[in-house]
Amino acid sequence: MALTSAPDTKAAVPSAADEMIVTAAILVIGDEILSGRTKDRNIGHIAENLTEVGIDLREVRIVADDENAIVEALNALRSRYDYVFTTGGIGPTHDDITADSVARAFGVSIDHDPRAVAALEAYLGPRLNEARLRMARIPAGADLIENPVSAAPGFRIGNVHVMAGVPSIMQAMLAAILPTLRKGQRVLSETVLANAKEGDIGGPLAALQRAHPNVSIGSYPFRDSETGAFNTNLVVRGRDPDAVEAARAAIVEMLKSVVRS
Amino acid sequence: MALTSAPDTKAAVPSAADEMIVTAAILVIGDEILSGRTKDRNIGHIAENLTEVGIDLREVRIVADDENAIVEALNALRSRYDYVFTTGGIGPTHDDITADSVARAFGVSIDHDPRAVAALEAYLGPRLNEARLRMARIPAGADLIENPVSAAPGFRIGNVHVMAGVPSIMQAMLAAILPTLRKGQRVLSETVLANAKEGDIGGPLAALQRAHPNVSIGSYPFRDSETGAFNTNLVVRGRDPDAVEAARAAIVEMLKSVVRS
Repeated sequence: MALTSAPDTKAAVPSAADEMIVTAAILVIGDEILSGRTKDRNIGHIAENLTEVGIDLREVRIVADDENAIVEALNALRSRYDYVFTTGGIGPTHDDITADSVARAFGVSIDHDPRAVAALEAYLGPRLNEARLRMARIPAGADLIENPVSAAPGFRIGNVHVMAGVPSIMQAMLAAILPTLRKGQRVLSETVLANAKEGDIGGPLAALQRAHPNVSIGSYPFRDSETGAFNTNLVVRGRDPDAVEAARAAIVEMLKSVVRS
Repeated sequence: MALTSAPDTKAAVPSAADEMIVTAAILVIGDEILSGRTKDRNIGHIAENLTEVGIDLREVRIVADDENAIVEALNALRSRYDYVFTTGGIGPTHDDITADSVARAFGVSIDHDPRAVAALEAYLGPRLNEARLRMARIPAGADLIENPVSAAPGFRIGNVHVMAGVPSIMQAMLAAILPTLRKGQRVLSETVLANAKEGDIGGPLAALQRAHPNVSIGSYPFRDSETGAFNTNLVVRGRDPDAVEAARAAIVEMLKSVVRS
C-alpha cells in the first residue's frame, strides 16, 4: 500500500509562442450572488464565448458590492491578464457602485458622460430622471459599450470591459465587444465518453498524458441522470489539431482494453 | 443635466460586534469551468447554505487545475476569511492535483492516509487500484470529511475544507461539515417585489437606505419571463430583525407613491 510516487501534474495547454495566447479574467460584482439569492448565469456564457474565439479564461472572482473589494480585485486581475470582464453594479440605484469603483481603480475622475446622457435621452425621453442619469456616470477616458436592450451603456477603460449583470443585457454587450478583442490561437477540444469510472482508467490515462505532452487531458466524472451510475468524460485540449487528434485516438484505443469494475 | 453629487455607496450589513460575524470564501478548482464546458452548480448551493446558518460568503475565486494558481489563491483566501471551501480536483486521475496543492500551500507533507485507505478498501474491495489509491493522499495533519456517496473522502486542514466537485458528493460533504462550523449571527433578508423599474425608484430608494443605516438595501432588476418587461426585487438585509422589518415596511410605503414610467 505504500505507494509514494509523486503525483503527475497536468501540463498547461501548451503553445508554440506566447503571442498566440490571449488571457482573460471575469469579475462578478454582486451581494446577491454571494448570498445565494441569485444564481450566476453569466460566467458560463462568457467562458464559452471566450474559448470559442481563442481567448483563455484563467480566473474568475466574485466580490460583494463593496468599493474596496472591487478595486482590489480589479487591480489584481487587470495587471495579470490581457482582458478583464466585469458584470453587475451599473444600474440606477444606490447599490450600483461599479463605475465609481472602476474609476478609483484606474485613478481617473468620473462624471456624467455626454455620449451616455444622449443615449439615455434618446431611449428614455421624459423617463430620464436623476436616478437613471446615474447610469451615464462613466470614468474619464472610457469608451462606451452599446446596450441595445435598455440603452444604459457599459464601458471599456484600458483592458477592462464593464458590463451589466442582467444576462440578456450582458450577452448583448459581450456580442458587441468580442469583435474588438485581440484573439489568440484557439484551444481545440475533443471529448470522449469513457463509459468507465474514472478510477478504472486513471492509470492508463496518466500514461497517455505523459505520452502526449502537447495536449492537456482532463477527466470529468459525472453521474448518469437516468441510472445514477458514474461515468466519465475525457477531454483533450490543445492548439495543434494533429496532436489533439492523436491523443483522442490513443484514448479511444486505450478504452478498448480497460477492465471496467 | 449637470448632476455632480457623489454617488451613495451601500453600507455593508452592519453588526453589533465583530465576533457575531463569521466569514468565508469558496475556491472552485477546474479547467472545465473556465473553458465553459461545465457550468458550475456548486457556488450557489454553498452560498445558500452558508447564508442560512449565519456565515457570510465574502468572495469566490475560480482557478485552473494549476498548482501555482491553486496555492496562491488558497493562501490569499485562507489568510483573509474564517473559512475556505474548495471544490474539485480530488479524484483518481492525473489532473486531480488539489490535495497536493493544498499540502504545498500549508507547507506540510502528503501521503496515503491510513484512514482514507481503509475507507476506500471497505467501499471498493478488489476495485481499489493504484489510481483510486490516489484519492487517499491527504495532507499531514488533516481531518477527513466523510463521503457517503463514493467513499473517497474530502478533508479539513486549518480553516480550509476540501470537497469534491461532483455536486451530489459536494452536497453530502457540505452537509457533514456545516454542523462543525462556528456560526455568526444570521443575516436576515426580506424581499419586496417592486412592480416598478429600478430607474423609477432609484431616488426614493437611496433616501430610504440613508434613513435605515442599520440594514443594507439591494435592488435587483430582472426581466419578467412571460412579458419580457423589467421589474425589480428589493432586498433588505440586516442582523437586527426590527431594523429589517422597519426598512421593509418603509419600502412598501414608498412604493405606493412611485410614479411608474
